[in-house]
Amino acid sequence: MSGSLTIAGLGPGADDLITPQVADALAEATDVVGYIPYVARIAPRLGLTLHSSDNRVELDRARHALEMASKGHRVVVVSSGDPGVFAMASAVFEAVEAGPPHWRALNIQVLPGITAMLAAAARVGAPLGHDFCAINLSDNLKPWALIEKRLRLAAEADFAMAFYNPRSRARPEGFARALDILNETCGDTRPVIFARAVSTVDETVRIVTLPEARPDMADMRTMVLVGSAATRLIPRTGTAFVYTPRSVSV
Amino acid sequence: MSGSLTIAGLGPGADDLITPQVADALAEATDVVGYIPYVARIAPRLGLTLHSSDNRVELDRARHALEMASKGHRVVVVSSGDPGVFAMASAVFEAVEAGPPHWRALNIQVLPGITAMLAAAARVGAPLGHDFCAINLSDNLKPWALIEKRLRLAAEADFAMAFYNPRSRARPEGFARALDILNETCGDTRPVIFARAVSTVDETVRIVTLPEARPDMADMRTMVLVGSAATRLIPRTGTAFVYTPRSVSV
Repeated sequence: MSGSLTIAGLGPGADDLITPQVADALAEATDVVGYIPYVARIAPRLGLTLHSSDNRVELDRARHALEMASKGHRVVVVSSGDPGVFAMASAVFEAVEAGPPHWRALNIQVLPGITAMLAAAARVGAPLGHDFCAINLSDNLKPWALIEKRLRLAAEADFAMAFYNPRSRARPEGFARALDILNETCGDTRPVIFARAVSTVDETVRIVTLPEARPDMADMRTMVLVGSAATRLIPRTGTAFVYTPRSVSV
Repeated sequence: MSGSLTIAGLGPGADDLITPQVADALAEATDVVGYIPYVARIAPRLGLTLHSSDNRVELDRARHALEMASKGHRVVVVSSGDPGVFAMASAVFEAVEAGPPHWRALNIQVLPGITAMLAAAARVGAPLGHDFCAINLSDNLKPWALIEKRLRLAAEADFAMAFYNPRSRARPEGFARALDILNETCGDTRPVIFARAVSTVDETVRIVTLPEARPDMADMRTMVLVGSAATRLIPRTGTAFVYTPRSVSV
């Protein structure tokens, strides 16, 4: 039987957010490869080998998966959320491009998943209901100056914004600087949503205005969403609804 | 029994891209409300009333759903893709904000789905693997000048871009102007992906460079993805892989 490599998104955490397509791929896999907490979500079974590895070894993990697929294994690389959004799919294709030519002939498929920003947005309403951008705030793999430039241009474009990896223990100051830039460039009333560990038992959701937002409201499990100038809050008993209207009149 | 309003994403078309969470909500619904082709995807059954309506009556549809929920029905409003991305969730919250106060007290939930841009991206690799933006190219509900401004700023920010509703029969010229702006502002080698009706029997995927892109390559069922300056093509037998690397070195 010929091998395959499937890069699958497990969604933000809840099992009922895993698509049947991904569940089927996992049911047929001989090997599951991924970051420790994501592989921990896969039920062990006879005939399935689980390969967990630590963060920041994405390329090694991708090469290992490609090698096993070359040998005829049915390999599933798991990501949380969607594998194509700041996750494992790019790492696998980087490895393919740099690797031996026969890797390009492999049966490689990407299966989409519910990405964190859309799960977070759904929790409060529809803050990403109009044009928006997604920015990874980690400067592990890109210069901070580029992040800053993108933030300023996104504010000028009046996109709603979704921030992945807002704040790491190693670099807590980045998110503080991002908030400073947004406070300089956006209005005072803009809602900011801190949605942590959405769809898991650890879920917390908090809505504040931009001037109220503090760096320590986020950690690496938090998605941060910032409204556009058009984004509206609907007060009610309980958590407010936040949405961005479909229409813009200028 | 008290009513509820659930706004659910059906994903891009294939049944195995519908999350179990959405399938469960549909199984418990008394009423399903939505645009004709999306409601047509729901299997009829005893105890379920299907309410189809035409395009461009989103607010009426939302009010109808809210009224039924107020009367105790378990209503599911269906969208394709993710309901929070250029879809029904914003329309429902617009109706809530403008409607009677008791609508705010309703049990309203948004259930995320696989949005078209992520299904399209998955088909070719990981073109949205780094910072990106999503822009609705329809000028039904916003001035064209705003679309043009956002395109120019997105190009300057070097975001990968995903375009929803690139081209309507009523306004074919908008997408041609968008391509002109991108040709002015982006390099010649940038890959453009035309992904039509992804995950359905009508699926077609085509990858060209920006200067090769023609307006008639898109229609209202097409997602258009444009790479950033960093996006790479991996040639191979069959459709090339397209991905945006995780790292940016400047």
